[in-house]
Amino acid sequence: MCELYSKQDTLALRRKHIGPSCKVFFAADPIKIVRAQRQYMFDEKGEQYLDCINNVAHVGHCHPEVVQAAQRQMELLNTNSRFLHDNVVEYAKRLSATLPDKLSVCYFTNSGSEANDLALRLARQFRGHQDVITLDHAYHGHLSSLIEISPYKFRKGKDVKKEFVHVAPAPDIYRGKYREDHADPASAYASEVKKIIDEAHNSGRKIAAFIAESMQSCGGQIIPPAGYFQKVAEYVHGAGGVFIADEVQYGGNPVSSAVGLAVLDVIENEDLQGNATRVGNYLTELLNKQKAKHTLIGDVRGVGLFIGIDLVKDHQKRTPATAEAQHIIYKMKEKRVLLSADGPHRNVLKIKPPMCFTEEDAKFMVDHLDGILTGLEEAIGDKTESVITENIPCRAKMSDEAHLESLSDGILDPKENPSSKRNGLCTDKHSLLSKRLKT
Amino acid sequence: MCELYSKQDTLALRRKHIGPSCKVFFAADPIKIVRAQRQYMFDEKGEQYLDCINNVAHVGHCHPEVVQAAQRQMELLNTNSRFLHDNVVEYAKRLSATLPDKLSVCYFTNSGSEANDLALRLARQFRGHQDVITLDHAYHGHLSSLIEISPYKFRKGKDVKKEFVHVAPAPDIYRGKYREDHADPASAYASEVKKIIDEAHNSGRKIAAFIAESMQSCGGQIIPPAGYFQKVAEYVHGAGGVFIADEVQYGGNPVSSAVGLAVLDVIENEDLQGNATRVGNYLTELLNKQKAKHTLIGDVRGVGLFIGIDLVKDHQKRTPATAEAQHIIYKMKEKRVLLSADGPHRNVLKIKPPMCFTEEDAKFMVDHLDGILTGLEEAIGDKTESVITENIPCRAKMSDEAHLESLSDGILDPKENPSSKRNGLCTDKHSLLSKRLKT
Repeated sequence: MCELYSKQDTLALRRKHIGPSCKVFFAADPIKIVRAQRQYMFDEKGEQYLDCINNVAHVGHCHPEVVQAAQRQMELLNTNSRFLHDNVVEYAKRLSATLPDKLSVCYFTNSGSEANDLALRLARQFRGHQDVITLDHAYHGHLSSLIEISPYKFRKGKDVKKEFVHVAPAPDIYRGKYREDHADPASAYASEVKKIIDEAHNSGRKIAAFIAESMQSCGGQIIPPAGYFQKVAEYVHGAGGVFIADEVQYGGNPVSSAVGLAVLDVIENEDLQGNATRVGNYLTELLNKQKAKHTLIGDVRGVGLFIGIDLVKDHQKRTPATAEAQHIIYKMKEKRVLLSADGPHRNVLKIKPPMCFTEEDAKFMVDHLDGILTGLEEAIGDKTESVITENIPCRAKMSDEAHLESLSDGILDPKENPSSKRNGLCTDKHSLLSKRLKT
Repeated sequence: MCELYSKQDTLALRRKHIGPSCKVFFAADPIKIVRAQRQYMFDEKGEQYLDCINNVAHVGHCHPEVVQAAQRQMELLNTNSRFLHDNVVEYAKRLSATLPDKLSVCYFTNSGSEANDLALRLARQFRGHQDVITLDHAYHGHLSSLIEISPYKFRKGKDVKKEFVHVAPAPDIYRGKYREDHADPASAYASEVKKIIDEAHNSGRKIAAFIAESMQSCGGQIIPPAGYFQKVAEYVHGAGGVFIADEVQYGGNPVSSAVGLAVLDVIENEDLQGNATRVGNYLTELLNKQKAKHTLIGDVRGVGLFIGIDLVKDHQKRTPATAEAQHIIYKMKEKRVLLSADGPHRNVLKIKPPMCFTEEDAKFMVDHLDGILTGLEEAIGDKTESVITENIPCRAKMSDEAHLESLSDGILDPKENPSSKRNGLCTDKHSLLSKRLKT
């Protein structure tokens, strides 16, 4: 692989020319990736990394059919949507075919953030209502209008919650208000939304929309209990509001539509949904065995290949094992496995790989996790717990929602992360207990 | 060219699946474009159109070097900015090299709208000031936060101007408050900004930013008088605010950076800036000859290939010739020349083609314009003026900022354009005086 710059020079140029709030993964020791195929990424030395985090490349990195569709279309035409074009309408038609009949009209935008901003405008236009109900820890994008409704963002910054924003508890049955021992957590969490609606009405306010990620990711890989969204939708519709389901979107020009069409083909031809179910179940099974073996794992939850491993110091109190999570993702990186840690306490290991992930990849990942957890537990058993916390030199937030959030991060409060003063790159020596551990 | 659908079916699918506020050019008779090269676009029948409006494709449609750069990079890697990558830093470095030394840090975004939203957030973060000064008729993007500061948008809709928004007069020396007969229009227009700052301070408000397009396009191809921006910057900086120059942006992933780098190369290798100056001067010269010949042309203004032709019914009163402008762009389309009409009165013919536009293209365009103007003036001389207005069946706004504004248009007020009820496509028979004119 021909490099333009050495890794050190790339790093130096990045510090000089890229805004400091645009963070890098593994800030203490960033990775330079030069190519990627399927669920593998390769650094400048040709080292292969197993990618467990880039769900945006959901049919696999650089899928040849997707690449070819883009290459062909960009030779012919890429222009705006004010001309008629077959790709654009065909993509809209095929997307609509995957949705209920009533959802038949598309607006294509440049990003998920733009889509959510437009959804809010449409919702407010609908009946003239203004208020928005959002879930705690939600992340809906990096624009002004979306940071306002993203507790994941505005709680960290100087901004205060706007009057028109109402925060409902996240339907988290592991660490939330109603847990797995509750008789009907779906109804209980939905009632919280109903309560917010009633209180808003009592203050003369009106609900324009309820917005939620189908499964919270930055919020800690939260899977809502079955029936929750249906009940919420009923309450919100009853109040004259709309239900906004926040999903990642593609753009709508001839090239992005060609890409979108190829992606739909690949998902179908390679049965990627079936694969996600099969490999996801297998991986969850392996992880549950790890849970039985390692006390650090408090909860394993997920649907398909969207999985969270909730690390705790104490099973009863569910005390988040934040420093341990950071330690693990760095050790996994040494083993060439890319993982991230997120959630309000940064203690949830996030797994959401490209959908072509295999059972071999799952086994490879879990075997390394097993080894690292074993070493970590031995170290904790030997020493005091505090050694881990003290030795994390730079706990930059390293979410994988970089395509959406990279620009917003840190702008709200440059002091939130000491490394942001050095252009988002932490140069402190990366010790991370590595000398104290046996793995 | 292999079509997936007939033009009629594409149109029908668009009506069914694409949001109605996403308008098409020439709504009364839309064009289906299937490929494009340099400054030419081709419809499904192979008909060639001279493109005078798509400045976004500024090095020419489907430039082979740009296409190849994208094709090569997308085979290797396209991922988010949380990994180090040479293209991203190299592009930032080369962009910075085109700017004054102090402007050395880049934030890459998905669209011009996202860039402006971020600029506002940075400006407000800087000193905690909140207010924004914008120019009348300005258009800064399709997001909630940008419609608020875009008089071009909020004046048409139901929205009222927010308290933190201050609108300064556009520095239009043809139709504005201070005209070409004023001794120093630059200072006069800048003083208007100073006045706004003083009034804001008197009410205890503080200026976060002044934002302006370097040359207004939707506002009617307005070229500010020399020295205006320098004086404004001085006043705004004095008030602790920042000056935001709104320019179109590229994204910052490995593929878009490869594209950006190739574009910089092409601009340099093909001397496109020199070409824009030479052909732009030639075209302006030709248009000034037309102005001397046709009373409909009130003003010809521009820099390089960014040119406006201000059509008037009366040179003294400068009454906008709105219906005539619509008539002309449809007649030009019949001659296979793509033009648009914009400005607050929709009477300014907008020219901003790809920068590879040639002197032959300029001559071709002006010859057709000459013929159409001659025919139009004869018809107006023969008949009453009102025939033109009465015979424009559908005056949908057809701005060329489709990549930014297509989604916002009409959402604010679905009634602004009768055709929006039919999915933005006007199907009325397109008469446009064609039978009454000799051209």
